[in-house]
Amino acid sequence: MANAQAVVPTVGKSAFSELPPIFAQLSEAKARKGLTFDQIAKAIGKDEVWVAAAFYGQAKMSPEEIASIAKVLEIDEGAIHATVGAHWFPNRSLGTAIPSDPVVYRLYEGVMVYGQPIKAVIHEKFGDGIMSMIDCRVTIDRKPDPKGDRVLLTFDGKFLPYITW
Amino acid sequence: MANAQAVVPTVGKSAFSELPPIFAQLSEAKARKGLTFDQIAKAIGKDEVWVAAAFYGQAKMSPEEIASIAKVLEIDEGAIHATVGAHWFPNRSLGTAIPSDPVVYRLYEGVMVYGQPIKAVIHEKFGDGIMSMIDCRVTIDRKPDPKGDRVLLTFDGKFLPYITW
Amino acid sequence: MANAQAVVPTVGKSAFSELPPIFAQLSEAKARKGLTFDQIAKAIGKDEVWVAAAFYGQAKMSPEEIASIAKVLEIDEGAIHATVGAHWFPNRSLGTAIPSDPVVYRLYEGVMVYGQPIKAVIHEKFGDGIMSMIDCRVTIDRKPDPKGDRVLLTFDGKFLPYITW
Amino acid sequence: MANAQAVVPTVGKSAFSELPPIFAQLSEAKARKGLTFDQIAKAIGKDEVWVAAAFYGQAKMSPEEIASIAKVLEIDEGAIHATVGAHWFPNRSLGTAIPSDPVVYRLYEGVMVYGQPIKAVIHEKFGDGIMSMIDCRVTIDRKPDPKGDRVLLTFDGKFLPYITW
Amino acid sequence: MANAQAVVPTVGKSAFSELPPIFAQLSEAKARKGLTFDQIAKAIGKDEVWVAAAFYGQAKMSPEEIASIAKVLEIDEGAIHATVGAHWFPNRSLGTAIPSDPVVYRLYEGVMVYGQPIKAVIHEKFGDGIMSMIDCRVTIDRKPDPKGDRVLLTFDGKFLPYITW
Amino acid sequence: MANAQAVVPTVGKSAFSELPPIFAQLSEAKARKGLTFDQIAKAIGKDEVWVAAAFYGQAKMSPEEIASIAKVLEIDEGAIHATVGAHWFPNRSLGTAIPSDPVVYRLYEGVMVYGQPIKAVIHEKFGDGIMSMIDCRVTIDRKPDPKGDRVLLTFDGKFLPYITW
Amino acid sequence: MANAQAVVPTVGKSAFSELPPIFAQLSEAKARKGLTFDQIAKAIGKDEVWVAAAFYGQAKMSPEEIASIAKVLEIDEGAIHATVGAHWFPNRSLGTAIPSDPVVYRLYEGVMVYGQPIKAVIHEKFGDGIMSMIDCRVTIDRKPDPKGDRVLLTFDGKFLPYITW
Amino acid sequence: MANAQAVVPTVGKSAFSELPPIFAQLSEAKARKGLTFDQIAKAIGKDEVWVAAAFYGQAKMSPEEIASIAKVLEIDEGAIHATVGAHWFPNRSLGTAIPSDPVVYRLYEGVMVYGQPIKAVIHEKFGDGIMSMIDCRVTIDRKPDPKGDRVLLTFDGKFLPYITW
Amino acid sequence: MANAQAVVPTVGKSAFSELPPIFAQLSEAKARKGLTFDQIAKAIGKDEVWVAAAFYGQAKMSPEEIASIAKVLEIDEGAIHATVGAHWFPNRSLGTAIPSDPVVYRLYEGVMVYGQPIKAVIHEKFGDGIMSMIDCRVTIDRKPDPKGDRVLLTFDGKFLPYITW
Amino acid sequence: MANAQAVVPTVGKSAFSELPPIFAQLSEAKARKGLTFDQIAKAIGKDEVWVAAAFYGQAKMSPEEIASIAKVLEIDEGAIHATVGAHWFPNRSLGTAIPSDPVVYRLYEGVMVYGQPIKAVIHEKFGDGIMSMIDCRVTIDRKPDPKGDRVLLTFDGKFLPYITW
Repeated sequence: MANAQAVVPTVGKSAFSELPPIFAQLSEAKARKGLTFDQIAKAIGKDEVWVAAAFYGQAKMSPEEIASIAKVLEIDEGAIHATVGAHWFPNRSLGTAIPSDPVVYRLYEGVMVYGQPIKAVIHEKFGDGIMSMIDCRVTIDRKPDPKGDRVLLTFDGKFLPYITW
Repeated sequence: MANAQAVVPTVGKSAFSELPPIFAQLSEAKARKGLTFDQIAKAIGKDEVWVAAAFYGQAKMSPEEIASIAKVLEIDEGAIHATVGAHWFPNRSLGTAIPSDPVVYRLYEGVMVYGQPIKAVIHEKFGDGIMSMIDCRVTIDRKPDPKGDRVLLTFDGKFLPYITW
Repeated sequence: MANAQAVVPTVGKSAFSELPPIFAQLSEAKARKGLTFDQIAKAIGKDEVWVAAAFYGQAKMSPEEIASIAKVLEIDEGAIHATVGAHWFPNRSLGTAIPSDPVVYRLYEGVMVYGQPIKAVIHEKFGDGIMSMIDCRVTIDRKPDPKGDRVLLTFDGKFLPYITW
Repeated sequence: MANAQAVVPTVGKSAFSELPPIFAQLSEAKARKGLTFDQIAKAIGKDEVWVAAAFYGQAKMSPEEIASIAKVLEIDEGAIHATVGAHWFPNRSLGTAIPSDPVVYRLYEGVMVYGQPIKAVIHEKFGDGIMSMIDCRVTIDRKPDPKGDRVLLTFDGKFLPYITW
Repeated sequence: MANAQAVVPTVGKSAFSELPPIFAQLSEAKARKGLTFDQIAKAIGKDEVWVAAAFYGQAKMSPEEIASIAKVLEIDEGAIHATVGAHWFPNRSLGTAIPSDPVVYRLYEGVMVYGQPIKAVIHEKFGDGIMSMIDCRVTIDRKPDPKGDRVLLTFDGKFLPYITW
Repeated sequence: MANAQAVVPTVGKSAFSELPPIFAQLSEAKARKGLTFDQIAKAIGKDEVWVAAAFYGQAKMSPEEIASIAKVLEIDEGAIHATVGAHWFPNRSLGTAIPSDPVVYRLYEGVMVYGQPIKAVIHEKFGDGIMSMIDCRVTIDRKPDPKGDRVLLTFDGKFLPYITW
Repeated sequence: MANAQAVVPTVGKSAFSELPPIFAQLSEAKARKGLTFDQIAKAIGKDEVWVAAAFYGQAKMSPEEIASIAKVLEIDEGAIHATVGAHWFPNRSLGTAIPSDPVVYRLYEGVMVYGQPIKAVIHEKFGDGIMSMIDCRVTIDRKPDPKGDRVLLTFDGKFLPYITW
Repeated sequence: MANAQAVVPTVGKSAFSELPPIFAQLSEAKARKGLTFDQIAKAIGKDEVWVAAAFYGQAKMSPEEIASIAKVLEIDEGAIHATVGAHWFPNRSLGTAIPSDPVVYRLYEGVMVYGQPIKAVIHEKFGDGIMSMIDCRVTIDRKPDPKGDRVLLTFDGKFLPYITW
Repeated sequence: MANAQAVVPTVGKSAFSELPPIFAQLSEAKARKGLTFDQIAKAIGKDEVWVAAAFYGQAKMSPEEIASIAKVLEIDEGAIHATVGAHWFPNRSLGTAIPSDPVVYRLYEGVMVYGQPIKAVIHEKFGDGIMSMIDCRVTIDRKPDPKGDRVLLTFDGKFLPYITW
Repeated sequence: MANAQAVVPTVGKSAFSELPPIFAQLSEAKARKGLTFDQIAKAIGKDEVWVAAAFYGQAKMSPEEIASIAKVLEIDEGAIHATVGAHWFPNRSLGTAIPSDPVVYRLYEGVMVYGQPIKAVIHEKFGDGIMSMIDCRVTIDRKPDPKGDRVLLTFDGKFLPYITW
């Protein structure tokens, strides 16, 4: 099984079907070039999860990022600007209430099983408020382990206290 | 606003209503003692998120852990063994498809927005498989930041490759 | 029809049924005293919508606010501290996906009809990000109008830009 | 990040897919001209949120408004009249029970968290009835704030008392 | 089969289970007195459908109406004032998305089958707007017919035009 | 705002998308001719709501009605017979559990708020049975009113008693 | 396994939990007497499926039928009249959208698999209309078969043609 | 209204949209030939409901049945074999949880109202088990009745006892 | 962790809440006796999964099985006969559309991921029909494996061919 | 009925509609060659259920498996590599919450009826943890039986214990 090699992202059922067609073209270009998200990320000075989010229409690329990505993928920069450029803003989210792909479901299960405990600990550590999912960085690391390598998935989000008025 | 002081966990609408009554008693004892999950966790040698999970009926306490918790809370150990002891196994999960409390919803939103990108990066880094939510540690840290402290929420789960046959 | 007189809040079907019983007692005390949310709000230096939110278990009262409210309602302060005091955090939200009471449904309809246009204008005015519902003040004013008085409902929320990483 | 500059509205997944194609053309023309909703609104004497609603098929343009918009966008007026002219009436609403885009979800969360308190305060201030979402103006203002500018979202709707018979 | 005789209203599964208990008492008193909604309605000068709505917690009784109803039913007026009096406002609606009782389902089917045609005719006759369900009278008449008597169900609601701004 | 003038019916999102294409052609012909449903109805001796139902695929036209409608609209009668003629039967209903267009939602709200009271009054007036939505006429009238004209929506349906066996 | 012997009906999870308690008492009395629905049905001159429907609150018993049933079960007739007598009307239906008990699910599967074909054949044999579920008899017979006895489930319902107007 | 004449089956919204296109062609051929399901059934020695099920993709035709049907409809047998021949197996079911067409809904209502009573009587007559919907014949007969002809819908299914192990 | 020792079954949230109380008593007796399902099964000559099904109200115990179980658990046999004896039949199923406990969800995921492939292979091996879940044995075995023991879950169900008619 | 002969898999409604088109081509090639899943499986050294999973886009083929399959089916290997090759990862799952095809529904019913008992027995035999659906083999065997052959469906999954931390 190829690990951390040059592969294109998982292109499943409806991942691109509700997005502007430019996103499918970005992924195809990435596949042709044999680049990983990590390689693109390093080339443009971003993290791979953010790059993947941008490739799935879940993050907004700035004009500079569009230019960098076009250069790395060796594709026409203008087409990206014209369709998902400065004037475009993502409609974020998967669009299905309960994700059914096993990889994504496990994340959902994490929320279902540990959601209430996480809420309790956040309140104990920070008070009344939430962890922002807007001012938030998501990163994934591979942690070697003799019993089987581990996925380190980290959400680093700003705490936002509830105001009163 | 009290941060990381001795407070009891958030006791909301239906957090305890579908659990054996012993769980409400554990939380009340914790409140009376003015202990945080972190203090209990340190006293019994576990992490605070796991302790919170156990207090919300989302994790199984071993007989030794029951004994330690009873000692820290100064409550009757026998009652815990009798109701949620060695013979008891949790029915895990929140029970609502889309969580609506804003703190828990943000976690769900994280899955909805970053689920597909995370899946893509996991496949790039590890191949075809999933991140286990069973062999998984969940931790929360407070990361000081002059622009507002941040919540560091980490899932550390074993990668499980799909087998073929 | 009594307008802005001393009345208790709408106590409908399940408004209090999933909350700690102290909330029903607060509303009953308010009814006995014949106080409006606005009168309580002025007495404790808060806005009436925030007070209503606190009375329906949707906001967290600080120990000082509990003391002030107990004094205004002439009820035992200790009982409030003991049940929904410093250690307690609300589990917010109505709990039904599509509200069916006509008053609340109209707000939902506002989101359904104007949600996409509001999103578009927020992006035009502020860029990629959201309007916070955590750092947000909600106020209601009566605007006299010869053709029928109008409800002025205002959400005053901080803009939070999406970060990249 | 471009604020209040000439940008086109957020064009997400299904924003235009269920609307007559003329709406996508209106937005494309707006993008080509580099106009904001506010600029169009000022040119035709309307508010920007209403213009955005009209561009997303959520409001009905009068023949005069169609003429004005066509003139501002420098596009063929006849095509608009022919497809969404005097004989056309919008089928309003987003079409999904629980919006999942984070910007729109925050509005929904506002209804879920503050819906019952808002209902209570409306009844206290106005009696038994509702706030109209038909005879209602929706406006958005940018309120400068040193800690981060704020979104002022206002619903100005007529109070409609329940009749008895 | 008893037609238009003194019977109490249909008391099905959860009709009263989510309402203040006073409503079950009103229906029991009505049954004991052997009064129809029509007889109560005539005695207090209202229509029978409105009275039925009030008895099922779907309409707000004024203090005068409470007094009249208590007199007709020969029950204690004070108990009604104390629980669902001037300070009380109904949380309206059945609470289930798709009604399953065959009588109520037929009404729902009427909306599903004729909803779009009714919308089209309202727009043709009145323009862009809605038929109010707040400023609306609902009446039921028995229309004799040799092939089987007919139910005449009428909604008489004010037309509310959409405003622009 | 044009009232009762020659306009075509509301052509919203999915009104025609799941119907045989002939229905969109009927509406386009109606629009070209500038005819209201009422004018077509008078020309063919039917009621306008029934005509609207037929145009939205919610009623079955007889061969004679097809002939009359084709004549009034000056379109080819054969194409209608060939596609939705004698051999064709409608698949009735909107297809969405909870209608979200505000005009149609108000009808749904009428069922949600007055459904149980209507059931109670029907049982009192007629006994155990239902109001037929099959042997039912639906009509809409404009009732002038100085405070704003009113919509008179009437369902005239046969009462069907439950049999026992 | 006891076939057609004196047994009480299946009393599962929530069969009686949302019904007036008298229904549980009827079933208990039936069990004590060791009577089948068929035996009760023959004693009172009705069919066993109708009797079962009445025992599960899905049919309305006339005063005479109440008297007969009370006599057969040797229980107090007055208690039945007082609670589900002439003034009472059933709120019919299972209350769950998709039944999950395997016996009831098979009936649902019959509708899902054969619903469209049945609709087509009804239209071919009868024209545009429906098969009434109000003027309908439901019967169950045991048909001996050497390969395993068969259940003959028959719905005998009046055809109701759609009217036009 | 044409009864039992040569008509094609109801071709509603999505009846054929999710099936292989050959099914729409079968129905068109049937319409051109002016044949009823009953006539086709008699010609090929099957029942009309089974034929209708086959035409809606709810039953599997054997190669011999394909040959017979092709002969009766005078269409190319090879095209049927090639697409839905011996190698093809139906994906049965309507695909919507709650059918909304009034004809099919009445069948669903029959399950909702009589499902529990039918279950009870099946258990009384047969013991613990189900009525098979696989080894089941569905037939429809027209039963003349001076008060209006009746639909006789019969399910003749094998009883399957639960095994223990 | 105790494997295959004397423990009682998982008693989670609502496992017993919708069942006759005798089931909770059976489980408590089992816990007091320290018996596994396997030990009870061996004592009464059944398989442990069937015994577990019976203890969760998902299978019907015969009078002989009730007697054996009462003897093994040393509890009063009469109480079981009286409540869930010969006259009682289970209302089977979990009652939630998508199970959320991780153990049960994995089984559901098995259906979601392998359902279509299993259907295809069953048709290839057996033709048009289903695998019975009524005439079906479910067994669980522990298969030792140096890399971690495995669960062998087997469904052994009769193939039922679709009949035609 | 053809059993275990060369047939193609069940190609129902949406089995391929949401997959890359190459999957439909694989199935068509399989049909042309008249091969069963079992024959392909034997030719490439895998199990037939895994092959079926791969053909329905539910399993990832390695480059070697792609080569073998292309050889067996005599189709162009390059097209498979290009579209669902090393860079492609499946989006697994049926995509409908409750499967409605009777074959797949029976598997779902198995989970609904035996899910809780299976959970209980797994905990008794293995402790707190789950049966992996990732490290899991699914096999189907035909077990001859004079009363009707049986389907042996086996899940052979690794037990994964919950960790604590």
